[in-house]
Amino acid sequence: MVVKVYGPAYASPKRVMVCLAEKGIEFETVTVDLIKGEHRNPEYLKLQPFGALPVIQDGDYTLYESRAIIRYYAEKYKSQGTDLLGKTIEERGVVEQWLEVEAHNFHPPIYDMTVHILFASKLGFPSDEKLIKESEEKLGKVLDIYEKRLSESKYLGGDFFSLADLSHLPFTQYLVGPMGKEYMIRDRKNVSRWWNEISNRPSWKKIMQF
Amino acid sequence: MVVKVYGPAYASPKRVMVCLAEKGIEFETVTVDLIKGEHRNPEYLKLQPFGALPVIQDGDYTLYESRAIIRYYAEKYKSQGTDLLGKTIEERGVVEQWLEVEAHNFHPPIYDMTVHILFASKLGFPSDEKLIKESEEKLGKVLDIYEKRLSESKYLGGDFFSLADLSHLPFTQYLVGPMGKEYMIRDRKNVSRWWNEISNRPSWKKIMQF
Repeated sequence: MVVKVYGPAYASPKRVMVCLAEKGIEFETVTVDLIKGEHRNPEYLKLQPFGALPVIQDGDYTLYESRAIIRYYAEKYKSQGTDLLGKTIEERGVVEQWLEVEAHNFHPPIYDMTVHILFASKLGFPSDEKLIKESEEKLGKVLDIYEKRLSESKYLGGDFFSLADLSHLPFTQYLVGPMGKEYMIRDRKNVSRWWNEISNRPSWKKIMQF
Repeated sequence: MVVKVYGPAYASPKRVMVCLAEKGIEFETVTVDLIKGEHRNPEYLKLQPFGALPVIQDGDYTLYESRAIIRYYAEKYKSQGTDLLGKTIEERGVVEQWLEVEAHNFHPPIYDMTVHILFASKLGFPSDEKLIKESEEKLGKVLDIYEKRLSESKYLGGDFFSLADLSHLPFTQYLVGPMGKEYMIRDRKNVSRWWNEISNRPSWKKIMQF
């Protein structure tokens, strides 16, 4: 049974897809066009009642929320492909900590920047320049803490690549690419080293093509 | 070794404390006064560089981010106290999904309401009435989806109490108590039933006293 991933053009589904690639799990994709409002179609809302991306279908098992899906596959296929959770419960705890930091500290400002720099005009509302500026300041402070962490540890969750790192890939790619803000990464030595390592993984190079 | 939980007066540390109570894990608390800015003290920032609550110390193991900490203890003591993760990896996947819904859909509006209704004057800034109104509308829409889910399933994650339900306790308690918005729960039959069940658990009755 091949896993179906909805919405491969967007960042959050790519979080799932790069996890599946790391685990060597075959998947196919189903297009959902946010610009056309397809995430508000009744058929889609039956799968994801909040109208958000992504959803996966794996046989008769349906799951949404990208960070729940990556935890599910990382655990279900623990010993297949890259181990993304750590060897011990204590290591997993630290991975979970940085996965939560990604969700609650890193994601909100980079998400607001993505929406207002890349998508506002396509979605038909004006960019909020004040919000963009404030978000960049917030993200900079988060990256300063990452810089310190990554001066002490090879990856965020420890000395191994994990879900905590993987979860940063899609939105950071927007930041360094179409948003034109690569300096936020390059101005910080250890963040820059970390970004080189995680963004050059074959899994991410493959998923970036979608 | 007794677990130390920092910041017991506040909602996010209570998320951890009610988990420890469900698992039968002994803990002690360390006061952190946000009004006095103690979360910005250098000693505290060594434990939690973002200046957020809570942190736990368990021997020489330190962990922050409440939802990471509850996952850690739920897994480490899987067979002690209440099982909060489900019996299978698929059940845990659904628990993780609703734990993420709590974090990304439920939490942002209820957090903004908490800050602006309960804490703004204490923290010395004006309440944003427009934000309160918009947040209540957003939270209402989220609770409408919960109402449907809870008409089909006893708890959010399935037919068993889990981290997904537990994670809602502290901020919903603010909503029905000091915020004076119990009607948001009581106007929805299944949400109301669910709230009665989870808020009457002995673990929560104990932790509410802190």
